Amino acid sequence: MKALTKAPPESLLRLKGQRTDAIDTPALVVDLDAMDRNIQRLAEFAAKHQMLWRPHAKTHKSINLAHRLLAAGACGICVQKTGEAEALAAGGIDDIYISNEVIAPAKLARVAQLAQTLSERGGRLSICVDSREGIERLAQALQGHPARLRVFVEIDVGQGRCGVLPGSAAVSLVQDIQRHASLEFGGLQAYHGKAQHLRGVAERREAIAEAVQAVHRTCEALQAAGLQTPLITGAGTGTLVLEAASGVYGELQAGSFMFMDADYASNERDPAQPHFEQALFVKTQVISASLDHAVCDAGHKSHAIDSGLPQVLCLVAGHELDYANGGDEHGLLRAARPGGPLPQLGQFLWLIPGHCDPTVNLHDHLIGVRGGLVEGVVDCIIDVDARGALT
Amino acid sequence: MKALTKAPPESLLRLKGQRTDAIDTPALVVDLDAMDRNIQRLAEFAAKHQMLWRPHAKTHKSINLAHRLLAAGACGICVQKTGEAEALAAGGIDDIYISNEVIAPAKLARVAQLAQTLSERGGRLSICVDSREGIERLAQALQGHPARLRVFVEIDVGQGRCGVLPGSAAVSLVQDIQRHASLEFGGLQAYHGKAQHLRGVAERREAIAEAVQAVHRTCEALQAAGLQTPLITGAGTGTLVLEAASGVYGELQAGSFMFMDADYASNERDPAQPHFEQALFVKTQVISASLDHAVCDAGHKSHAIDSGLPQVLCLVAGHELDYANGGDEHGLLRAARPGGPLPQLGQFLWLIPGHCDPTVNLHDHLIGVRGGLVEGVVDCIIDVDARGALT
Repeated sequence: MKALTKAPPESLLRLKGQRTDAIDTPALVVDLDAMDRNIQRLAEFAAKHQMLWRPHAKTHKSINLAHRLLAAGACGICVQKTGEAEALAAGGIDDIYISNEVIAPAKLARVAQLAQTLSERGGRLSICVDSREGIERLAQALQGHPARLRVFVEIDVGQGRCGVLPGSAAVSLVQDIQRHASLEFGGLQAYHGKAQHLRGVAERREAIAEAVQAVHRTCEALQAAGLQTPLITGAGTGTLVLEAASGVYGELQAGSFMFMDADYASNERDPAQPHFEQALFVKTQVISASLDHAVCDAGHKSHAIDSGLPQVLCLVAGHELDYANGGDEHGLLRAARPGGPLPQLGQFLWLIPGHCDPTVNLHDHLIGVRGGLVEGVVDCIIDVDARGALT
Repeated sequence: MKALTKAPPESLLRLKGQRTDAIDTPALVVDLDAMDRNIQRLAEFAAKHQMLWRPHAKTHKSINLAHRLLAAGACGICVQKTGEAEALAAGGIDDIYISNEVIAPAKLARVAQLAQTLSERGGRLSICVDSREGIERLAQALQGHPARLRVFVEIDVGQGRCGVLPGSAAVSLVQDIQRHASLEFGGLQAYHGKAQHLRGVAERREAIAEAVQAVHRTCEALQAAGLQTPLITGAGTGTLVLEAASGVYGELQAGSFMFMDADYASNERDPAQPHFEQALFVKTQVISASLDHAVCDAGHKSHAIDSGLPQVLCLVAGHELDYANGGDEHGLLRAARPGGPLPQLGQFLWLIPGHCDPTVNLHDHLIGVRGGLVEGVVDCIIDVDARGALT
């Protein structure tokens, strides 16, 4: 498990109170005002719908940010990896849900240890399963540990990734869970990842309507078997208004809403969706300039391109720039309109990443900025504590 | 600057001498025998062509591997970032070339400091420029430092990224360099990144023929101005046979040859090319299995997908699998032939990354394996020391 505290390097600590000009590039920068508004809007949305929200820490991987989300009313956090759970537990997060299947005995031993640690602290570890073998392995790992583990059965609600088929297959798994005193059935994991990025509102409505039907079908099958479903957990930034409106889901897992990215910004906006603002940027600098293009120092080692290339934030009308991939460490910048102005050597630019989660995963630190100034040290230089927590 | 030594976590140290089954997933694993053969083949190739080789450390970012390359005859290392140079210098690498433009005064102050540090150790720092302003800024940063910096003028030999136009523009920059006692003209940086990934041998020959012409033209212009060109540096894994055959290039910068990847493997092989073997793998595990697909625990937080998705290493004929993107933490596996067998829950698989450099950048450690066993600690758990050295 990672140490509880990890001091950011001196060069970052020196940034406190300075203008953003002082931030060396490439760097990942968070507009804390925008992020706070995003968090507040989700908190209000969840309260209005009387839902729990358990934002996904795979987005930020940061102890500091997880605590901010809890302070705003989140009931706990989701993670995808055992290592993320360990890193965030080491930072004082007590209610953690590994919303993913864990199969390796070595990892399950860590899961069992973490369940006990959190339980002793008055917290709770939850995890996801989609197979009988997964349940057996979990139960085996927990032997000799007094802690109980809350277990969600993942059903495939349309993504075609993990999860059993909705209906009787899920019932069978719940019955398996109930054979083990160390396991407690927590409910259904019903997350539709693909639906988050369907561009049109109608497409997303259709996808989530099917997901909701799958959930209903499964709850009915469980009820027919005399089993109650304590909670349905799921939903991402792209569809959360739909899961909320369904009346079935009780917990929102959305994580990207706090940062946003170019991909989510490309979705047609659902009128019911809270207004989430772009809060995450890669600051970059022009290191080479020629007559027809400029080159900046942020390539795909600085931002993930799985969901498309970054966009260049346009601060002056008419100065729009297109970003083309220049390799691992370079970006190629051209005027969006023929003859438009190019940035000068040394100029700083702000990129809007295509996809926030894997972009954060590339950086050791997030630099928090408020009103153009780097904020106080504790609250601003935000370690990406679980970066590299791949296992 | 990073500390000289950094102990890998206990969980990795315990792997020493164990079979690869013991490696938790996802993990980046190097077949050290294959890597050693790749290094040996490049060393022999360079010797045969009487060329220096200065492998690019942006590929491996590892002190341990940099030392292995030097031991095999490399004259030094290339890096792309000041932070990489610092991390590798802290690990005892004395001859470092930042093959990239540096413009930020804060970084240039670090460059100047590093030039002095390496000089005091009997080593040398080199850097790349492509603008008069870049040269002025460099000279300014070096004021008050006794160390001299070797400076290469980058010419654009067809990539359309950094670099001045071949010919008179380069002459003008060399003259600028020579106005500063702290700067020493090292030669021309003439790297054609795009050409590395042209699939056909004929296309690559054409591209590098043009690059060689551009170099000739520039050397002639320099000679006409009474200037000698000490060295032409460039070439990558995809084209190095062509630069070597040109008789103009004196130094090879190729880095990927030591690991290789699915993208380089897709190139039509030049008969003159040394046989470079795949040596880098992402070990992954099946965490979910259904009737028509399986899901493994390696998504694009475990391997870069800028140059395509990873391939699944096929260990049994007829068991070929296709990998589809399952998001940040998941890969979707389907039988390559309808009805072909799917891997079972818990099964380990080995992925060949699409692109080695940014894949290494996602990991904190490389696990070195020889003959199916994790090798001794010092030589096997290879820290990616400069991972996250973005600036």
